[in-house]
Amino acid sequence: MKRLHVVVASTRPRRVGPAVGEWFAARAREHGGFDVHLVDLVDVALPLLDEPEEPSTGRYVHEHTRRWSASVEAADAFVFVAPEYNAAIAPSLLNALDCLYTEWFYKPVGFVAYGGSSAGLRAVQMTKQVVAALRMYPTVEQVPIHHVSEHLDEDGSFRPADHLPAAATAMLDELVRTADALAPLRHGRG
Amino acid sequence: MKRLHVVVASTRPRRVGPAVGEWFAARAREHGGFDVHLVDLVDVALPLLDEPEEPSTGRYVHEHTRRWSASVEAADAFVFVAPEYNAAIAPSLLNALDCLYTEWFYKPVGFVAYGGSSAGLRAVQMTKQVVAALRMYPTVEQVPIHHVSEHLDEDGSFRPADHLPAAATAMLDELVRTADALAPLRHGRG
Repeated sequence: MKRLHVVVASTRPRRVGPAVGEWFAARAREHGGFDVHLVDLVDVALPLLDEPEEPSTGRYVHEHTRRWSASVEAADAFVFVAPEYNAAIAPSLLNALDCLYTEWFYKPVGFVAYGGSSAGLRAVQMTKQVVAALRMYPTVEQVPIHHVSEHLDEDGSFRPADHLPAAATAMLDELVRTADALAPLRHGRG
Repeated sequence: MKRLHVVVASTRPRRVGPAVGEWFAARAREHGGFDVHLVDLVDVALPLLDEPEEPSTGRYVHEHTRRWSASVEAADAFVFVAPEYNAAIAPSLLNALDCLYTEWFYKPVGFVAYGGSSAGLRAVQMTKQVVAALRMYPTVEQVPIHHVSEHLDEDGSFRPADHLPAAATAMLDELVRTADALAPLRHGRG
């Protein structure tokens, strides 16, 4: 079974990302198509890009970059649980993408985006421009969450609107299909 | 005379940003339209957004955010000396924008972008989406530098192609005009 990393992309204090990520990871485990792992960028603790060499060389001098490289290398597919700041991608996610290179190649990515009226979709659209440079395959199927703060319980857990579980299933199905199809293109495995 | 901050946006090791920034700041001083200050984001040393409250509140608990707020508040116009990573804005610049809010309002911004074939223009176009959310005015006039690594001297200083000084002048003229026009809209000054 292929490995899916559900990446909680926001790292700011008081973020809602973990609640949304936990909901989605549980949904993905129910789906059954992947070995599901929740990855929190707070735990990854990457500073802004501080490697002396280009990420395309794969030569990393810092332990934090090496750890992140090993994490991304191990995954076959990703779901980014993504907030939107100023109509754009969060710097924490952009930096996590930019710190590596070939580790991302030929892996599909889906988005669980959240925001107010925009449901984070402007951030997703911008992220698609970046992942395209990294030879990733962004799924058309996505899980956009409108007005996320209205869907948090008193204990802080996320309660999805009725249409979201079906959207999650469609995205997971497409991630399984595309991860299988693209795997032969990945270096050392083709 | 209004104050222009020329912001060196890249913070990665072995960046060429300082060489380009020093060239542009010298050019801006010759132009004479602004009191010119060179600001290096390495010195600003912002971590990824770590404030508990929304930047729109202006309530900052960290000294690094307060210092950055005072710096941006003091400026009347900006030039971002901007690299391009993966066809996109650098996380260091995006994070520096996202950490503040009203400090940016109604201030014009020009771009000295650099890259290979793209001259950093894809990063500029993406940055315009973000600065628009911050009520900044991005000038049409810009200074795009193709194949920047071919324009560095042996001592690392930047030697511009022949057309760049005129492009810099046109951008500076527009920054002066728009900084003057927009200043009355800024809070506490209108």
